[in-house]
Amino acid sequence: MENEIVIHNGTLLTMEQGLPVIENAFVRIKGDKIAECGPAVPGRRWEGATLMDACGGIIMPGLVNGHTHTPMSMFRGLADDLPLDVWLNEHIFPAEARDINPESVAQWTAHSCREMLAGGITTCCDGYFLESHAAKAMADSGIRAVAGQGVIDYPAPGVPDPSNNIAHAKDFIEKNGTLSPRVTPSIFCHSPYTCSKQTLVAGKNLARDKGVLFQIHTAETRAEPGMIKENTGLSVIAYLDSLGILDPDTLLIHCVWLNENDIGIIDKRGCGVIHCPESNMKLASGVAPVPDMVAADLTVGLGTDGCASNNDQDMFSEMDTAAKLHKAVRLDSCVMDARTCLKMATIDGAKALGLGDVTGSIHPGKAADIIVVDTTGLHMTPMHDPYSGLVYAARASDVFWVMVDGKVCFKKSPPVNPLGTDRRAG
Amino acid sequence: MENEIVIHNGTLLTMEQGLPVIENAFVRIKGDKIAECGPAVPGRRWEGATLMDACGGIIMPGLVNGHTHTPMSMFRGLADDLPLDVWLNEHIFPAEARDINPESVAQWTAHSCREMLAGGITTCCDGYFLESHAAKAMADSGIRAVAGQGVIDYPAPGVPDPSNNIAHAKDFIEKNGTLSPRVTPSIFCHSPYTCSKQTLVAGKNLARDKGVLFQIHTAETRAEPGMIKENTGLSVIAYLDSLGILDPDTLLIHCVWLNENDIGIIDKRGCGVIHCPESNMKLASGVAPVPDMVAADLTVGLGTDGCASNNDQDMFSEMDTAAKLHKAVRLDSCVMDARTCLKMATIDGAKALGLGDVTGSIHPGKAADIIVVDTTGLHMTPMHDPYSGLVYAARASDVFWVMVDGKVCFKKSPPVNPLGTDRRAG
Ligand SMILES: [Zn+2]
Ligand SMILES: [Zn+2]
Repeated sequence: MENEIVIHNGTLLTMEQGLPVIENAFVRIKGDKIAECGPAVPGRRWEGATLMDACGGIIMPGLVNGHTHTPMSMFRGLADDLPLDVWLNEHIFPAEARDINPESVAQWTAHSCREMLAGGITTCCDGYFLESHAAKAMADSGIRAVAGQGVIDYPAPGVPDPSNNIAHAKDFIEKNGTLSPRVTPSIFCHSPYTCSKQTLVAGKNLARDKGVLFQIHTAETRAEPGMIKENTGLSVIAYLDSLGILDPDTLLIHCVWLNENDIGIIDKRGCGVIHCPESNMKLASGVAPVPDMVAADLTVGLGTDGCASNNDQDMFSEMDTAAKLHKAVRLDSCVMDARTCLKMATIDGAKALGLGDVTGSIHPGKAADIIVVDTTGLHMTPMHDPYSGLVYAARASDVFWVMVDGKVCFKKSPPVNPLGTDRRAG
Repeated sequence: MENEIVIHNGTLLTMEQGLPVIENAFVRIKGDKIAECGPAVPGRRWEGATLMDACGGIIMPGLVNGHTHTPMSMFRGLADDLPLDVWLNEHIFPAEARDINPESVAQWTAHSCREMLAGGITTCCDGYFLESHAAKAMADSGIRAVAGQGVIDYPAPGVPDPSNNIAHAKDFIEKNGTLSPRVTPSIFCHSPYTCSKQTLVAGKNLARDKGVLFQIHTAETRAEPGMIKENTGLSVIAYLDSLGILDPDTLLIHCVWLNENDIGIIDKRGCGVIHCPESNMKLASGVAPVPDMVAADLTVGLGTDGCASNNDQDMFSEMDTAAKLHKAVRLDSCVMDARTCLKMATIDGAKALGLGDVTGSIHPGKAADIIVVDTTGLHMTPMHDPYSGLVYAARASDVFWVMVDGKVCFKKSPPVNPLGTDRRAG
């Protein structure tokens, strides 16, 4: 018989259509799936089930980190506040040449997964080199992951000869398809300016052939549209479209430097987009036109990017920043409201990654990827609205337990209410 | 004999000139003052002193929150993502009319002080109505505070007749001068557009007469310069200067909408400025030209603003946002580096508040306002640079103890290193 768990005594945000708030709710889990959820039914007994007390906190789907480079936690704070070329050429590239090897990739991916799980992230989308070692570490950690083998037309860790880059990615996808039910292989082409037209087309053909997600950094820096325009006469998005590589299984990361036509193309092709506001800010990439993408109903998720450019993998901070940045830049306090940002960090991120049927919301039949957030902290009190509380006040440290596929991956002691008041539901 | 405490086994950031990093340091505290600090001396014994183990963390001055409205924590998350006029007129003003009274001001100021202390803030600069009740709660909490009685030319809580607003502030200052050695009274004129010329001049004269800080929200919203220009023909700063109210004991809060001449005027008059990036973002006020102010060598501190517009009082998050926001908007990854942001949150904030000789850095003779930050968290590891670590990765929840005037105001269990490695100095 399958293991049964019932989470009870919390406020449930399902992140399903209409964004209901269900006070004093329960979620019943059977094996690795959500079986049932709703408001508590007085007198109902849960025979044979393990009860988990949410202690009056918020029960919600785990967060989806739509873009990271997990092994790069090893470079956290290595070199900050520098011009992009100095940062890359004098610090990051030499550090990668020196420190990236199978052992370090495994070690720091494991570290990143623990950091993410402890902060309520149950799914991440990764892209790096030596990705088989990252994929193994992600599988072992318990996190759900899309693992993207990096492809670039330069010598790279594990792929000294770039002419083998697509073959290497093919090998990675074939070998890791059955690694874990929670880890999906993918191909990660670095960018439109570090991969040739041939590489991009071959990469997308491989992804189509294998049925996996094709990821690419897109229109990230201010210089990129000029480079692409000079070579092709097209915008970055129009160029990628001209290669036939835009479809719902292509994930466009960053999309900072778009024009209005670009958004129409993305919409028509159905690509997912990942917005990484903190990375874009810290690297001075610019401010992506995300409110326009949301208005055009694109599928936009949120990502932290790697720790060399953020410097943490904290989706609570990322939601807060996403909500505030665009208000300041547009002088419009209504854009990127808390509900929109929380959707981006859960169900919309899951959809962008092609995992919308699997995770990102609490619904019977979906994977039991669930977190509980303590709401008794001084910084969370009072809480007039749980969406506002989560986006504008909650911290990653407020997450007190985390479940992926019905398994508890992180757990802290239940919260001690510092105010001494009783916030538990009846 | 005065109580002696020695903090040891940590990395010391004094925030004094040159921003030294002293590994394996100690700080000796005698009574309420710092007596001595420096690198550990092997074999030295501390007879009669209480030893406090920093557990390998960062020992640094407490953070200075240069602007808040402490009682407004009661409105945290009450109404977000709305146009400014709807937010103010339909939510905040009615809530203030309904809920602000001596008891609620005392209760929620106490709450805010606990929130701030738990997040490493040892000094705050407050401005609100019924401020005597806030001042009492701040004194009781142990925090260091500048307590500003609000002045506005409209009926306000505790001052139903605005023609009494200056007299009320005078009474507040006279009655609270000796309330606590840690609480300094002040006058807080709401803004150049809600206080008349007469009120502003009378308020500043009162402040000069009593030798206290004069605080004012300045050039916060995009509409403000136009209103002032229409009435006076001057920029907001030039208008305030024309009234003779700009000097080193005037604190200008926000300064979003300045021109280049304005920065020169502020520089010449020596006013302190408080930058509140998260409030400016969330309320869509705009982006203050802070890198220009820093380049002009103005004294700029950081503030959270009240919880209705942020929604927390978290200076770690505020530093992170300040460091990132201007990089994005200026497309320059070098502005607002981590050291600058940490100075703004400590010594420069203290100077702006007129407390530069009292707090904001670790130096013999200054008040023992000291915090210790745990650096063993997954999100803080590795830590290549402590300034980067504090600004770009640390969270308020990493603070594990907090001292004001030599008294411990907040304490958590020493950190348990989740990596199991030994980071303690020898
Ligand atoms: Zn990236
Ligand atoms: Zn304010």
